[in-house]
Amino acid sequence: MRVALLGGTGDIGEGLALRLARDTDHEVVVGSREEAKAEAAAADYHDAVGGRIEGRQNADAAAGADVVVLAVPPYHVRETVEAVADSLDDAVLVSPGVGMAREAGGFRYDPPPNGSVAELAADAAPDGVPVVGAFQNLAAGALSDLDRTFEFDVVVTGDDADAKATVTGLAEDVEGLRALDGGGLSNSAEVEAMTPLLINLAANNEGMHDLGVRFR
Amino acid sequence: MRVALLGGTGDIGEGLALRLARDTDHEVVVGSREEAKAEAAAADYHDAVGGRIEGRQNADAAAGADVVVLAVPPYHVRETVEAVADSLDDAVLVSPGVGMAREAGGFRYDPPPNGSVAELAADAAPDGVPVVGAFQNLAAGALSDLDRTFEFDVVVTGDDADAKATVTGLAEDVEGLRALDGGGLSNSAEVEAMTPLLINLAANNEGMHDLGVRFR
Repeated sequence: MRVALLGGTGDIGEGLALRLARDTDHEVVVGSREEAKAEAAAADYHDAVGGRIEGRQNADAAAGADVVVLAVPPYHVRETVEAVADSLDDAVLVSPGVGMAREAGGFRYDPPPNGSVAELAADAAPDGVPVVGAFQNLAAGALSDLDRTFEFDVVVTGDDADAKATVTGLAEDVEGLRALDGGGLSNSAEVEAMTPLLINLAANNEGMHDLGVRFR
Repeated sequence: MRVALLGGTGDIGEGLALRLARDTDHEVVVGSREEAKAEAAAADYHDAVGGRIEGRQNADAAAGADVVVLAVPPYHVRETVEAVADSLDDAVLVSPGVGMAREAGGFRYDPPPNGSVAELAADAAPDGVPVVGAFQNLAAGALSDLDRTFEFDVVVTGDDADAKATVTGLAEDVEGLRALDGGGLSNSAEVEAMTPLLINLAANNEGMHDLGVRFR
């Protein structure tokens, strides 16, 4: 499978790229608005973990990809989807983004008017391109710390069963990740809302950092 | 310690009563609007697990309690706090409630205008009575299934350090519960929002039911 990580030079993009390149046989394409930045990041990631990994400008990264991950800040989701819309072919779009506001006492969930970032992505996506919510609750620092092993859950939401199955399989190809079915895309807000909770827990509990979650 | 569970005849009240009576030496007082109902429930719970457990009308249950748990539906929180306000002495009020709406595709977090049920409870509480959010993410069915062992996290939020320490200790007296510091009371919404997620995960994943969560 070919997996494009748009915004793949950012921290969650880096973390997913490293783990996918190290743990799976998938082709990883790091996307960025600037091709040179994408190529430099891909070279760095390859130096760290080997694997099949290259860098491309976002639209070129999306072209031919089976899975396109929107690893960009929530406020860039719409423009990013629009910039690659003509390149999506048969791709599944994946939304790992979370809208958060930092306040005095901690982080708050701050969703877009669409209800969730995943639904914002679906609203921006061309007709017929399925959108799946996933990877919102993974700490970039845990993914990028290659010495760290973990047992984290990834909640997968979406309205297209085939697309969800594709993303479920992709997530479970990464060591230590278990994918769970969160139901339809309209259930995404509750998944996204857990990310500020994870950050608040890490901030308030000694010895806990880059937290993930396991349901049991 | 004396722990009053207002609405202790309901499902989360039952679950907490059973585990506290079985696992700890605390006095458990089951509260209800009707004293006879409280007494009958307390007798049932005592038959199941022994321990120190009695039933009282809500205000009598709250009187002399060190911890008063608002185990009532969110829309009864304000009237329940007001009904026991004169009996609170030096008690810590604990809010385990979550506002949820059931929609076609799953459960949604549906907080009150105060931001969270915990903040609603704080708004209703008399001056000087500290309110702590806790126990929102425990499945009543898991607590009440006395054959079930678990390793669940309880996130404790609040603005009074002593009150939080009291509730943290109480939670950790129950076998299999670990209490984590979630920060101030204004961080409660993200804790409450995880409950509909837990329900949605149980509904969509075979073999998962009455889920809890462990952060790691």
